[in-house]
Amino acid sequence: MDFEPRATRKDITGAVSNPEFFNYGVEAYEACKKGALTSDIIDEQKKVQEADLVIFQFPLYWFSMPAILKGWMDRVLCQGFAFDIPGFYDSGFLKNKLALLSLTTGGTAEMYMKTGVSGDYRYFLWPLQHGALHFCGFKVLAPQISFAPEIASEEERKAMVASWAQRLKTIWEEEPIDCTPPWYFGQ
Amino acid sequence: MDFEPRATRKDITGAVSNPEFFNYGVEAYEACKKGALTSDIIDEQKKVQEADLVIFQFPLYWFSMPAILKGWMDRVLCQGFAFDIPGFYDSGFLKNKLALLSLTTGGTAEMYMKTGVSGDYRYFLWPLQHGALHFCGFKVLAPQISFAPEIASEEERKAMVASWAQRLKTIWEEEPIDCTPPWYFGQ
Repeated sequence: MDFEPRATRKDITGAVSNPEFFNYGVEAYEACKKGALTSDIIDEQKKVQEADLVIFQFPLYWFSMPAILKGWMDRVLCQGFAFDIPGFYDSGFLKNKLALLSLTTGGTAEMYMKTGVSGDYRYFLWPLQHGALHFCGFKVLAPQISFAPEIASEEERKAMVASWAQRLKTIWEEEPIDCTPPWYFGQ
Repeated sequence: MDFEPRATRKDITGAVSNPEFFNYGVEAYEACKKGALTSDIIDEQKKVQEADLVIFQFPLYWFSMPAILKGWMDRVLCQGFAFDIPGFYDSGFLKNKLALLSLTTGGTAEMYMKTGVSGDYRYFLWPLQHGALHFCGFKVLAPQISFAPEIASEEERKAMVASWAQRLKTIWEEEPIDCTPPWYFGQ
């Protein structure tokens, strides 16, 4: 899938509400309300609507998602679909859904400890889990992090996949994390 | 500028080193060393190389950069150009340069206080400033944040621009922030 990550004028089909001054957020919101978003966005929104749990699987690029997935967030989770003002965080439109970040890192687990050079891994989860997912109302399950598979042995890699498979068997029984600053920055 | 944000096989000109199993990071690193990256990446790398200060100006999308700019980070700041292993954080290849994030938000300053619904604005700066810029060696100047220009009055907007213009006059005299966890999460 070669998803378009750029949020542009092309995302709105037909006329925009203010052609003199293009404001992406405003125009996407208006287009969402009248069903005038471009089809690749609508297709993705339908998938989200049907899902009980959305799993984001990605390699960590610069402490975040690769741009193609960031663009999915930017374009698909627009105002009117995923949230409104008011209508965010616990009142976000996706509040009856679960979300989970499953990611692989380049750095080792030791680098992502509070005392490691890259700081606690929870620090970089804040914008993604709280700022984006929780903002849309998602209840966030604990992240699945596979540290440094590139430098792991074949056996270690198999163990990572096996533990993820094992977890998925009982994923519906899990309680979401408490998506507040203490989870990310507390002791 | 319609920059391509997706990190793909197309970024490597000519043969890849492992055609059986495409690993973007590995291939981009190899291509960087032998000058085989695609031209839009090389053009941007030249601009970075010539700059003493790189200012990233963007609207905050999901507590981060819009995907088009995230893709610039993903593709331009590759291993071999911006860092190596070892050769990151204080030893990153861009260590004699300054970087600054200048951003506009949708939410108000009150929302981005430690006690606000979106948490302290410094929280979301961690992945960008520490995880990306500092990793490449950049010394990071304090961010320039223009909160909620959309809902500000014309007068307030002019004041935001004026204070930014004023700051730029003496930007070369500024000391970088101490890009460590206490700056982001401390009291």
